[in-house]
Amino acid sequence: MATIKIKQVTKRFGRHVILDNVTTTLEAGKIYGLLGRNGAGKSTLLNLINDRNFATSGEILFDGEPINNNPAARQQMYLMSETNMYPKRTRVKELFKAADRGYGDFDFTLAHRLTNEFGIDENSMVDNLSTGLTTIAKLITALCVKADFIFLDEPTLGLDASHREMFYRELLKTYERRPRTFVLSTHLISEVQNLIEHVIILDNREFKVDQPSEELLAQAFAISGPTAEVDAITKELPILGSHEIGHIKTVYVVQPIDAMQLATSSVTVKHLDLQTTFIALTDGKEL
Amino acid sequence: MATIKIKQVTKRFGRHVILDNVTTTLEAGKIYGLLGRNGAGKSTLLNLINDRNFATSGEILFDGEPINNNPAARQQMYLMSETNMYPKRTRVKELFKAADRGYGDFDFTLAHRLTNEFGIDENSMVDNLSTGLTTIAKLITALCVKADFIFLDEPTLGLDASHREMFYRELLKTYERRPRTFVLSTHLISEVQNLIEHVIILDNREFKVDQPSEELLAQAFAISGPTAEVDAITKELPILGSHEIGHIKTVYVVQPIDAMQLATSSVTVKHLDLQTTFIALTDGKEL
Repeated sequence: MATIKIKQVTKRFGRHVILDNVTTTLEAGKIYGLLGRNGAGKSTLLNLINDRNFATSGEILFDGEPINNNPAARQQMYLMSETNMYPKRTRVKELFKAADRGYGDFDFTLAHRLTNEFGIDENSMVDNLSTGLTTIAKLITALCVKADFIFLDEPTLGLDASHREMFYRELLKTYERRPRTFVLSTHLISEVQNLIEHVIILDNREFKVDQPSEELLAQAFAISGPTAEVDAITKELPILGSHEIGHIKTVYVVQPIDAMQLATSSVTVKHLDLQTTFIALTDGKEL
Repeated sequence: MATIKIKQVTKRFGRHVILDNVTTTLEAGKIYGLLGRNGAGKSTLLNLINDRNFATSGEILFDGEPINNNPAARQQMYLMSETNMYPKRTRVKELFKAADRGYGDFDFTLAHRLTNEFGIDENSMVDNLSTGLTTIAKLITALCVKADFIFLDEPTLGLDASHREMFYRELLKTYERRPRTFVLSTHLISEVQNLIEHVIILDNREFKVDQPSEELLAQAFAISGPTAEVDAITKELPILGSHEIGHIKTVYVVQPIDAMQLATSSVTVKHLDLQTTFIALTDGKEL
């Protein structure tokens, strides 16, 4: 199966550098999490990969060929984003038909089941739906379209808690039945921790993390205990963030350490979840 | 200070009933949470209150006078929503100036501090900002505008976790300095639990809950223990939802009960948080 290679891509808007020489590969049949603070350039990257905008330099290859004006690549990539790519007064069922015309083999059976479960009338105009239901109509299209790379930019924008749960469940179901690549860009990190196999964190114009979730979380720790002891133990470590309450200090590190060895009778070393790891890596001060 | 009275308001779109004879009062100087599933009609209600749409029947009064075409009412009400009410190619600083022209006495000092803290250039075109930063620009406007009733429809759409935290903190700060009414409509219920003083839950076209948060949470319980015992204890109670794992059953009720009296050595009775209470009331099956 194909891969998408992003090679030394830089994107500037005027004097503003959004992406600075980033390189990675998106493999077939994996669920990626593309994480980053507001304004980090996640949507810009997704637009570049999907040929909705041009890189200032560098190249993006689908199966070895540049993605620009490449119908074979376009055929295998689908981007769901806040920007609507359909004309005004489009009905939900017309979204599905358009995806079927563009990509072929649209899964109408799944689409009908999902509109029914989420309570959407396929005859509704998309623009007349509420924010959350518009997102759902677009998500259903993305889950049923026949493409090997599905990019979901903020897939849960405006979704209530039950609908978010339903979406995560349906994503996993369809992924198991027909493995393909999903790239999820989201701010509800704790909710997708168990979905994501590979994490890419965009920070300060670069990929700060690009590795399997398990590998990242295996080396993300909170070290907590009496301040003097914690300081002594961690003085050689690159500390991402810390806070102190009374004389108890907690420091956050993402580093291959031997947790068993560092812990003492008064100092605990605990694994971090993905959300906390993300905050430590991108904004340690906030912890 | 003024109040807003919503009296027997019904809204239909064609044959579709969105709101069915709803009545409530929004008081001065309170933080309200307007909660509801996707498509429940929250945005419709906010649009009616802010005279962006007409009720099919019933009336909405500001200080005793109908809000329709009522400049004195309009002057005291500000709605921040996904629909953008500014022209294309508007700069962030122009949003602020427009709010100053419309409402007077815009808090430019606070606005400058907030754009700085959130990392927004006031010279940016709003349409060029990312989803999250657009939301932030609109939120800053809403926090700095001089009006007694501020309606925030999905205030954290697209905001990352740190920015959501910053927003909640700034909302409380400005509220303490200048008490006014905020109505928050959001799906991130667990995050706003501590902000909200009064909860309105819109479900099935009606207000299912309209009461102080404390009062609601004081009677929201999970009763958990061996199935037979739990069934016996709860057989007279209106059960909203339940689940069973092995022989342990948990049922959810929102009912003034005596928790101490119901609990036994094997049955626990625990208070629910707002998110779980909401799900139990609107979609018990999902629990």
